[in-house]
Amino acid sequence: MTQNIYDNPEFFQVYSQMRRSVHGLEGAAEWPTLRALLPELRGKRILDLGCGFGWFARWAREQGAAEILGIDVSEKMLERAKEMTSDAAIAYQQADLEEVELPAARFDLVFSSLALHYIENLERLLISVRTALVPDGWFVFSMEHPVYTAPLQPGWVEYEGRPGWVLNSYLSEGARVTDWLTKGVIKQHRTLGTTFGLLVRSGFTVTHLVEWGPTAEQVAAFPDMAKETERPMLVLMAARPSPKL
Amino acid sequence: MTQNIYDNPEFFQVYSQMRRSVHGLEGAAEWPTLRALLPELRGKRILDLGCGFGWFARWAREQGAAEILGIDVSEKMLERAKEMTSDAAIAYQQADLEEVELPAARFDLVFSSLALHYIENLERLLISVRTALVPDGWFVFSMEHPVYTAPLQPGWVEYEGRPGWVLNSYLSEGARVTDWLTKGVIKQHRTLGTTFGLLVRSGFTVTHLVEWGPTAEQVAAFPDMAKETERPMLVLMAARPSPKL
Repeated sequence: MTQNIYDNPEFFQVYSQMRRSVHGLEGAAEWPTLRALLPELRGKRILDLGCGFGWFARWAREQGAAEILGIDVSEKMLERAKEMTSDAAIAYQQADLEEVELPAARFDLVFSSLALHYIENLERLLISVRTALVPDGWFVFSMEHPVYTAPLQPGWVEYEGRPGWVLNSYLSEGARVTDWLTKGVIKQHRTLGTTFGLLVRSGFTVTHLVEWGPTAEQVAAFPDMAKETERPMLVLMAARPSPKL
Repeated sequence: MTQNIYDNPEFFQVYSQMRRSVHGLEGAAEWPTLRALLPELRGKRILDLGCGFGWFARWAREQGAAEILGIDVSEKMLERAKEMTSDAAIAYQQADLEEVELPAARFDLVFSSLALHYIENLERLLISVRTALVPDGWFVFSMEHPVYTAPLQPGWVEYEGRPGWVLNSYLSEGARVTDWLTKGVIKQHRTLGTTFGLLVRSGFTVTHLVEWGPTAEQVAAFPDMAKETERPMLVLMAARPSPKL
């Protein structure tokens, strides 16, 4: 069972004040890059894994998606998502992504924003996603980059006049307990190579792999983003079912 | 034109004493992992980009390869390769990989060990490789991992009781001048996402992406390799021509 940190009152309160929580997709700096990986959404049946407040579901409907199912482990987030949604084509379901059962060949697109780095048994979930997709479907997701999740004690140093991200433990995979928004948030560190291999073994062909960093315009608008050009914080990927399984 | 550092007398002298130069493939710690990405070699026509002393070419012949063409920019390395080779099925050619012209649909396997991080115009080379391969061919290569090539001033710090690799400038692509074996070695830093994107755009489907680190046995045998588990030094990849171009 995934740690349900989003239902922790302190975490939820701080998370709710983040730009991406208040402003939705437009408040997420990586959104333009992630959006560019998506197929045309008109008429598509979409599954959103880790849907949070439902920002993507509502946006996808604006783009003409036929229906969206949003799944999240957090009851607090789903409660707010439902408050903000009045659309019979959008449904929300509370479930732990470690154990969720998905219908077969039911979706054209599976989307997931910043959820997969919480998943311990990623292989199980990827196989479920592959099964839930139609053969010509899409799987588009973002997750924290392993360069960001690797260190046991994350931090920056000043080195030769430049900020340096202290990278270590990269090849030691497993749980990482960090203090992000609140104490004791558990994430699962795995290398990019491992995630790639799990995708291939689950029957996917990876079509896009983007290591996200802010644009010069974003850094100008939000100077505290400057460090995010020193090391990749997020990885965005798109994959499609492989021709042969 | 690539910097031909291997023909620099000082570099060549130190490089010639490295384990991988003296002991060949078995002296390269990543070789077992790279070897595992190769197809069955019997009867294959092989191109080796950056063939160096020809260790791979001679090994491939032992595995039953039909013919091997080794290309390298370094005259000193090719001279020694020829000295060590007496096999009419192995040919060597001196050429700059930035400009090399390859025949179309001529090879079953293109192999490259630790050469691509020197290439400035990687897209041109990848398109040439794609064209030189038969439709069901393989492209298997290793290169320095961008986490390793990124820093302008590479180095380690001690941080919270553990060695930390100082990562920065990851998203700033371009030339890096480092002092490896000799002063002023020029490498080309590009993100893993960029290399992946270039492969896809050149008509490849990536089938394997491995971030290499030493095994526990290797660290026990060579304790100075311990740090190589803290951050990936090499990335090994396998790709095949995409079904649709």
